[in-house]
Amino acid sequence: MEIIRTVGWMKEKAREARQEQRIIGLVPTMGALHAGHMTLVEHAKKHCAPVYASIFLNPTQFGPHEDLSRYPRPLEADVEKLTAAKVDGLFLPEAKEIYPHGFSTYVHVEGLSERLEGKSRPGHFRGVATVVLKLFEIAQPHFAYFGRKDAQQVRIIQQMTRDLDLDVEIVVCPIVREADGLALSSRNDYLAGEERKAATILHRALEAAAAEAKAGVRDSLELQRTLNKVLGGETRARVDYAEIVDAETFDPVVRIIRPAYVLLAVHVGRTRLIDNLLITPVGEELDVEL
Amino acid sequence: MEIIRTVGWMKEKAREARQEQRIIGLVPTMGALHAGHMTLVEHAKKHCAPVYASIFLNPTQFGPHEDLSRYPRPLEADVEKLTAAKVDGLFLPEAKEIYPHGFSTYVHVEGLSERLEGKSRPGHFRGVATVVLKLFEIAQPHFAYFGRKDAQQVRIIQQMTRDLDLDVEIVVCPIVREADGLALSSRNDYLAGEERKAATILHRALEAAAAEAKAGVRDSLELQRTLNKVLGGETRARVDYAEIVDAETFDPVVRIIRPAYVLLAVHVGRTRLIDNLLITPVGEELDVEL
Repeated sequence: MEIIRTVGWMKEKAREARQEQRIIGLVPTMGALHAGHMTLVEHAKKHCAPVYASIFLNPTQFGPHEDLSRYPRPLEADVEKLTAAKVDGLFLPEAKEIYPHGFSTYVHVEGLSERLEGKSRPGHFRGVATVVLKLFEIAQPHFAYFGRKDAQQVRIIQQMTRDLDLDVEIVVCPIVREADGLALSSRNDYLAGEERKAATILHRALEAAAAEAKAGVRDSLELQRTLNKVLGGETRARVDYAEIVDAETFDPVVRIIRPAYVLLAVHVGRTRLIDNLLITPVGEELDVEL
Repeated sequence: MEIIRTVGWMKEKAREARQEQRIIGLVPTMGALHAGHMTLVEHAKKHCAPVYASIFLNPTQFGPHEDLSRYPRPLEADVEKLTAAKVDGLFLPEAKEIYPHGFSTYVHVEGLSERLEGKSRPGHFRGVATVVLKLFEIAQPHFAYFGRKDAQQVRIIQQMTRDLDLDVEIVVCPIVREADGLALSSRNDYLAGEERKAATILHRALEAAAAEAKAGVRDSLELQRTLNKVLGGETRARVDYAEIVDAETFDPVVRIIRPAYVLLAVHVGRTRLIDNLLITPVGEELDVEL
C-alpha cells in the first residue's frame, strides 16, 4: 500500500485515476482504526478501485479542552490493517500540509452544526466540514464512506455535499458493536475496568427504546422516559444529551412519523461517548436500526 | 451559444469536457456586461476551450439595504455580447437552482473578509466565496477569470482556492476604464449628469497617488494626504474608505516595500463605487498599475 504524504501527490494520484475513468473510493479517518473503520473499507472495496483511506487527526475539530493530545495514534497497526484490507493508498498528511501557514477558509453548515454535538463541542462541525471538503478536493472520490455512529456528522456532510454541488456520493455504513453492544470507537481505548462495563449503558438505553419502538411506541416523551430511567441506573454515567430528533432536520420530534434518531452523548469518567438508534416508520410498523 | 439553466446540465457539460481532456475556462459575472467583462472573456478564449460565462445575480452577497433589486439586468444585450464573443455556453441559473430550499452551507475566508469592503458590506464576501466555490464545483473550470477592480474579492477567492485545495487557477485581468478614467462597472449605469462627472474623482485621486509613487514616494501617510486632498475637492463624493494596504494581507502599510494596493470606496449620490491602484516595488523604482 502506497503511503501518500503530500496534498500534491494525492491530487496527482486522484487525477490519474479520474483520467483513466476509474471509480475512486475514500474512507476518511482519524486513525486508531477498529472494525467499524474496516467495514467502511470493505464497502468501498466492493464498489471502487482505487480505494484510498486517509488518516488525519484533524486539530480544527477538537476544542481547546478536548482529547486531541491523548487521542490514540497506533500508526503501525493502522497501516497493517489497511494493507491487509488491500487499500490502494493511505493519505497521511501532517497538520501543516492540510493547514499551511495563513490558512483561513472554513466551511460551515449553519443550523445543523449548532445543535447537540455542535452545542457540546462548539466549532467541532466547522472543523469537520472544512477538512472533509478539503479531503474531497484532494482525493476526488466518487464515493466517500462514513459510519452511522456519527449520525449528525454524516447528516452535515450530506448537507454540505448537496449545498456545494460536490461530485461525491456519501455512503453511510452501519454501526459496528462489541459483543456487549458498545459501539466501536477509537475513544473506547480510554475505557478500562468498571468504566468499560459502565460504557454499555448507552447501548442498553438504546435497546430499551428500540424495544418500545418495535412495540409501537411513537411518542417521544415516552421513549425519553425510558432512556432517562435506564441511563439514571448507571452512576458512572453523566448524560450530556439524550434526544429524539428528526433524521433530516435534527430538530426534536414529538411523535415519530418520519425517520428519527435517538441520539445519546454520555460521559463515562473522562471519556465522552456517543451512540444512536435509527427509527424508521414502515407502514404501520417502526423499523429500528441499532 | 448554448444557454444552460440547471446545475445538473452544467455539471454534465463540464464532465464531458473534462473527460475529453479539454481546458475549461469560466468567467463568472452578475450580468450587465461591459467591456471589462468582455476582456475576461477574451483572456479566457485565448487559453481555454470551452469557455463558459455565468450570469448569476447572487443574492447572498448583497446586504438587506443594498442595490440587489435595482441592479441592472439587460439579459438580451448580455446574451448578444457573449454570443458575439463566441462563448461556448452561458450558465444562467435561477436563484432557487443555486440556493434550493434548506440551503445552509457557507464558505468564509476569515480575516480578509472582515476588512474594508467586508466592513462596509457585512456578509458580502461570505456570499461571494460561497457562490464562487459552487460555480467552480458546477462548471469545473481549469481557469477562472476575475477583474482586478474587485481587488479584495480576487484576493479572497485566491485564498479560498489555496486553502480548500481547489483545482482551478485564478486569472486576474486589468481594470478597464472609460476615456475619462472611470473604472468600468455595471453600477456606472446608475450615474448620470453631474454624478457621472463627479465619479471620475476616484481615478483622479488614484492618478495623483500614482504620480507620487512614480516619483518615489513610499510613505503611506504622504500618499494618503494626497488622496484626501483630491477626494476632498469633490463635494458630491462621500468617501467610505481610502487606504493603502499590503496586496497579500490587506493590512494597512506604513511604507511601500512590497506590492500594495491603494483602495478607494466612494459614494457618489446613491451609488457606491470602488477602484484601486496597484503599486509594485521593482528594484529602486515603484511600478504602478491603474
